[in-house]
Amino acid sequence: MSHNSFGHLFRVTTWGESHGPALGCVIDGCPPGIALTEADLQWALDRRKPGGSRFVTQRREADEAKILSGVFEGVTTGTPISIMIENTDQRSKDYGEIAHQFRPGHADYTYFAKYGVRDYRGGGRSSARETAARVAAGAVALKVLQTLIGPQIKVRGAMVQLGVHTIDRTQWDWAQVDQNPFFSPDATHLTLFEEYLDSIRKAGSSIGAVVEVQAKGVPAGWGAPIYGKLDSDLAANLMSINAVKGVEIGEGFHSATLSGEDNADEMRMGPDGVEFLSNHAGGILGGISTGQTIVARIALKPTSSILTERQSVDVRGQDVDIRTKGRHDPCVGLRAVPVAEAMLACTLLDAFLRHRGQTGGIAFTPGALQG
Amino acid sequence: MSHNSFGHLFRVTTWGESHGPALGCVIDGCPPGIALTEADLQWALDRRKPGGSRFVTQRREADEAKILSGVFEGVTTGTPISIMIENTDQRSKDYGEIAHQFRPGHADYTYFAKYGVRDYRGGGRSSARETAARVAAGAVALKVLQTLIGPQIKVRGAMVQLGVHTIDRTQWDWAQVDQNPFFSPDATHLTLFEEYLDSIRKAGSSIGAVVEVQAKGVPAGWGAPIYGKLDSDLAANLMSINAVKGVEIGEGFHSATLSGEDNADEMRMGPDGVEFLSNHAGGILGGISTGQTIVARIALKPTSSILTERQSVDVRGQDVDIRTKGRHDPCVGLRAVPVAEAMLACTLLDAFLRHRGQTGGIAFTPGALQG
Amino acid sequence: MSHNSFGHLFRVTTWGESHGPALGCVIDGCPPGIALTEADLQWALDRRKPGGSRFVTQRREADEAKILSGVFEGVTTGTPISIMIENTDQRSKDYGEIAHQFRPGHADYTYFAKYGVRDYRGGGRSSARETAARVAAGAVALKVLQTLIGPQIKVRGAMVQLGVHTIDRTQWDWAQVDQNPFFSPDATHLTLFEEYLDSIRKAGSSIGAVVEVQAKGVPAGWGAPIYGKLDSDLAANLMSINAVKGVEIGEGFHSATLSGEDNADEMRMGPDGVEFLSNHAGGILGGISTGQTIVARIALKPTSSILTERQSVDVRGQDVDIRTKGRHDPCVGLRAVPVAEAMLACTLLDAFLRHRGQTGGIAFTPGALQG
Amino acid sequence: MSHNSFGHLFRVTTWGESHGPALGCVIDGCPPGIALTEADLQWALDRRKPGGSRFVTQRREADEAKILSGVFEGVTTGTPISIMIENTDQRSKDYGEIAHQFRPGHADYTYFAKYGVRDYRGGGRSSARETAARVAAGAVALKVLQTLIGPQIKVRGAMVQLGVHTIDRTQWDWAQVDQNPFFSPDATHLTLFEEYLDSIRKAGSSIGAVVEVQAKGVPAGWGAPIYGKLDSDLAANLMSINAVKGVEIGEGFHSATLSGEDNADEMRMGPDGVEFLSNHAGGILGGISTGQTIVARIALKPTSSILTERQSVDVRGQDVDIRTKGRHDPCVGLRAVPVAEAMLACTLLDAFLRHRGQTGGIAFTPGALQG
Repeated sequence: MSHNSFGHLFRVTTWGESHGPALGCVIDGCPPGIALTEADLQWALDRRKPGGSRFVTQRREADEAKILSGVFEGVTTGTPISIMIENTDQRSKDYGEIAHQFRPGHADYTYFAKYGVRDYRGGGRSSARETAARVAAGAVALKVLQTLIGPQIKVRGAMVQLGVHTIDRTQWDWAQVDQNPFFSPDATHLTLFEEYLDSIRKAGSSIGAVVEVQAKGVPAGWGAPIYGKLDSDLAANLMSINAVKGVEIGEGFHSATLSGEDNADEMRMGPDGVEFLSNHAGGILGGISTGQTIVARIALKPTSSILTERQSVDVRGQDVDIRTKGRHDPCVGLRAVPVAEAMLACTLLDAFLRHRGQTGGIAFTPGALQG
Repeated sequence: MSHNSFGHLFRVTTWGESHGPALGCVIDGCPPGIALTEADLQWALDRRKPGGSRFVTQRREADEAKILSGVFEGVTTGTPISIMIENTDQRSKDYGEIAHQFRPGHADYTYFAKYGVRDYRGGGRSSARETAARVAAGAVALKVLQTLIGPQIKVRGAMVQLGVHTIDRTQWDWAQVDQNPFFSPDATHLTLFEEYLDSIRKAGSSIGAVVEVQAKGVPAGWGAPIYGKLDSDLAANLMSINAVKGVEIGEGFHSATLSGEDNADEMRMGPDGVEFLSNHAGGILGGISTGQTIVARIALKPTSSILTERQSVDVRGQDVDIRTKGRHDPCVGLRAVPVAEAMLACTLLDAFLRHRGQTGGIAFTPGALQG
Repeated sequence: MSHNSFGHLFRVTTWGESHGPALGCVIDGCPPGIALTEADLQWALDRRKPGGSRFVTQRREADEAKILSGVFEGVTTGTPISIMIENTDQRSKDYGEIAHQFRPGHADYTYFAKYGVRDYRGGGRSSARETAARVAAGAVALKVLQTLIGPQIKVRGAMVQLGVHTIDRTQWDWAQVDQNPFFSPDATHLTLFEEYLDSIRKAGSSIGAVVEVQAKGVPAGWGAPIYGKLDSDLAANLMSINAVKGVEIGEGFHSATLSGEDNADEMRMGPDGVEFLSNHAGGILGGISTGQTIVARIALKPTSSILTERQSVDVRGQDVDIRTKGRHDPCVGLRAVPVAEAMLACTLLDAFLRHRGQTGGIAFTPGALQG
Repeated sequence: MSHNSFGHLFRVTTWGESHGPALGCVIDGCPPGIALTEADLQWALDRRKPGGSRFVTQRREADEAKILSGVFEGVTTGTPISIMIENTDQRSKDYGEIAHQFRPGHADYTYFAKYGVRDYRGGGRSSARETAARVAAGAVALKVLQTLIGPQIKVRGAMVQLGVHTIDRTQWDWAQVDQNPFFSPDATHLTLFEEYLDSIRKAGSSIGAVVEVQAKGVPAGWGAPIYGKLDSDLAANLMSINAVKGVEIGEGFHSATLSGEDNADEMRMGPDGVEFLSNHAGGILGGISTGQTIVARIALKPTSSILTERQSVDVRGQDVDIRTKGRHDPCVGLRAVPVAEAMLACTLLDAFLRHRGQTGGIAFTPGALQG
């Protein structure tokens, strides 16, 4: 029940602060015999890395992951994988004011109220820099899934809403996602996004976003009733990402407006087993995967660091007004895409290992038992 | 990491199937010395109980909770509280067809795919009858919170959207919630809800809903970074409720459209400490309570049991068409209100106990340290 | 991390007090598809049942286990198995004195110091009656192990030391264990044990014992480094049994006196794989099973309830002298045999499920990989 | 339930192999506001450090602990404390033979059987080098305990049996323990121990030992029934130390020979509350601390690495004979003393935090309630 860990059989513990010497994670329970190198982590870290465009923080971090244990002669050994990423661009600056003030929307005040002490440099533990460790763990999870289940497993994410602008889903093209700084699958909206976010950035403001993640190729049977539901685990893990204020599966909040007839995902036997005629459920029923694509979305609030002065208080109990200078993402939702993918990959691998533990891991197929 | 438990220091394990002899829960970690009787549970169970109006299932269950352990001479002893609720209205009927068919939208197929065997009577373990055990546990949690923290702690819920119809939040009146079968806080929409749901019910159809839960009086400091966040735990626990497809905190999905300026909850020192000028965050920042009202909403899909024929398959791998007869709620969202309240109460108490364990439990106040 | 649960993937939560209406357990994570009836539990419960001879407590309990959930049409469904055993012989007597006094050697004082309140009737939660629930769970675990791994798996226990008298291990005969009230595998010592324990019983005194448990047929590879070691789990689970003050594996405390040469279990390839030439390790190396018989022993202190007056204090802070009347086992070690077996069976099944989860569950064999 | 973690609210996860670049631990749940520097860890690490005398391995390691997170401006922040110790003396040698052979008594074979792959360099993950991380964590736990509870808390260990030679307990002097390479509290046996271990060392042999740990100043009320017992946690944590084959509390195995009269720890009211007249229980009753000194002992088997040839097999399934050359401790029990102390300190702090969480943390005192 440690607060800085998630997962059960595939368990990830992260550590580190924004401006400490390093951050990292320890992965416990990784299956043995999986080919794994630092390069397997690096491509994922590079996607999340700051400094890639003018739409993200200008902090420069190499984000180079070192594997310190758990891998021998290129394969995982089943023992803990310790991954460390050194912080290299934590500028030595005067934290004089921020050290004693609570930035609205940040965790400054709540960490203080809880602990009475906090590492105020760059948000300390509550900084989104922590998500680098998640991305490294997610890359391990994905490699394991693709090794154990097969290359058909795909875990992908995209930004689907930037502030008030939503993508055109009919234009969805996964190949686009890595071609633009917005992680948008819709190329037709890029100019709009660019102008929109430029105006926000130049105003020293910020905006929220919605990110969608999908997992294809997940067999039926992963997850478990009642409190170990796949969607319950996924909700917890996605909600733990910085700035996330909502999580939905499949139709999500829209399902509240649907009738039972419209929401039902009908089934028919196909050549390879059960086929669903729709996927309102987002690939999960009763907390267990159906074999369809798993679909989840998260809502991210706007970056709390803005240039406009806001009212606040300080640790001495004095009223103050705060403008948050520094290097910030105008939309934290963008770089949340690889983080959300990582959380989905980790959640799935953990669910698979638990399923394999309890049942042996093979999905039962209609017709197979009764001949 | 058992799949049928939630919480850590206040840990609830539930058991039982829809048509088995009984269902119940074991509560481990309840603080000692709390006055507790079966009556403390019964009022909560009565709110969730089926059969109360024509808008919920006509199954008749007394839902009488018996406390089998953990309470001695009227107070909790710190040992496990075992609560049992006997099933009394599980009709002996012919399950011939449903025993071998997978009802679309239900967990029938996924339980089969996972386990190869399932208790098909009334959905077995995946039935919403399981939520009676949650409501009993939630009543215990609420009693503990009000004893340890004080009567100012209030945990309440209401239905805020029924299908396409949303309440008028300016009409919000908590006193209304228990006065109508919709758990609506807005009396001005009751006729609309009644006609709307009547038409759905008569058509043998169903509809989704959105439920909001709030907790007032929660001090700052509960919850924990990073994966033990209060909103992360809350997301998991609310998502575990039957039919829930989305969870949001504070502004939730709406926060994606907000600017940093609009979303910031500004602060000022008031006579009793920090005061927030708004509550977009829903009472949680960085995973830790702010001292404001905690606000969460869940989206519930329409009941999957409908009278219209839907395409499906059976365990033999044959295509079939299914109409789900029986006693069902036209909107499962209604009776989710007391269940969501229960999950919120349990989540809060667990967070408090962990907070008290790690830190001693007293929130730090600006000004107090630096004088 | 609930205090009244053990195991991870096969997780057992027990509840109930000595003189409450019932006690029981909830088993979460039991693999599906295992044939299971109440009769599978009853034989085990009958072995532990009080009242069987003059050497155990004269309390009369039917100890009939009812399965309330998790089994459908005679097989486990993968959902929680709730087992309840009603208390039938909790005599209504005057607890006047004992209600306010702390019996030396019992948990009376520590429960009071911790909780400020306790169910003093028959020791309440700390009574050995709780172990009935363990025995039921152990019977389930054994059935699962024998179904999944095969009938070659045997989990057995015996009393090997009664007070100052130790059995003659050259006379070990498993068939004897259930033929005498001492659970002794050595028939040559029965008269000695009988006279010894009779004299103790008549004096209103009590004595300790040592119990050995063994598991045959456990494949290599179960357990895990470093804190999930099979012997570490086993130590915790055996130490949790009432009155246990020591746990040892294989040579145990004797290994302190051995040289490296004498303690080494040498290996040779045999027709069916690796063969060990001795078993000083007790079947576990580095926390992982070797494929040999697993051997553990526990030391049990004498029953604390004795007729001789002892000095103590009461809840008012007054000195008192206490004689513990009532129905007690002169040697609690005897009935610990089926309890220790149950803990071993549960520990093994849990280790197997975790092993299967992380690795797939097949042991690697020398020669198989390298041809 | 990760296998490389222990503790619940104070949770320690260790990582690293004997010959990897580094090893370390992540401590989650450390209370905030505790003054902590690397020097607080170093004194403890220096006690465990190899190379200190001819009676321990000649491997030279600085064992310098670096704190990478969780401490800010000299105090703990409540966030994870990541500690890293670099390996500096992992000699580059030819592992040709040992890479494919299973050393008897080591975990070589079981790791292979479980994972199919292992880091064979110096035992890899199963090496006792891992215990350096435990010692660092234990030093943190001790600092927290002494800060939160007071300097009266003392956690200490000593070697009480070396092979066949037992110390004279009447000569016990804690001040002696750090004055000799045997961690012996009895100065009168040092010459005997020296000659005995010299002869074993020169013969290339090894011997076992018994280590005792004690905790003074622990208040009543820590620990919890039934499976969260303080002695149950302690048994698991001590059994997880390399080479440990037995754990006992208080009288331990000797209690099997005692009568109820002799084993009872009688009580009387003293000026400061309840006083026990003896401590057979080792400070724990019903899994909860009594307020007396907590006493536990562990048996450690002889080092498995010896110069005498032993029969074994290799990964190809061939019979081989093995002599284990290299730098080894002739008695691993010696350096287990600081490790066992560390495990005791961690176990106690975890129990305290859980106790504080569930109950508020104040022990109830006889007389206080009833006045």
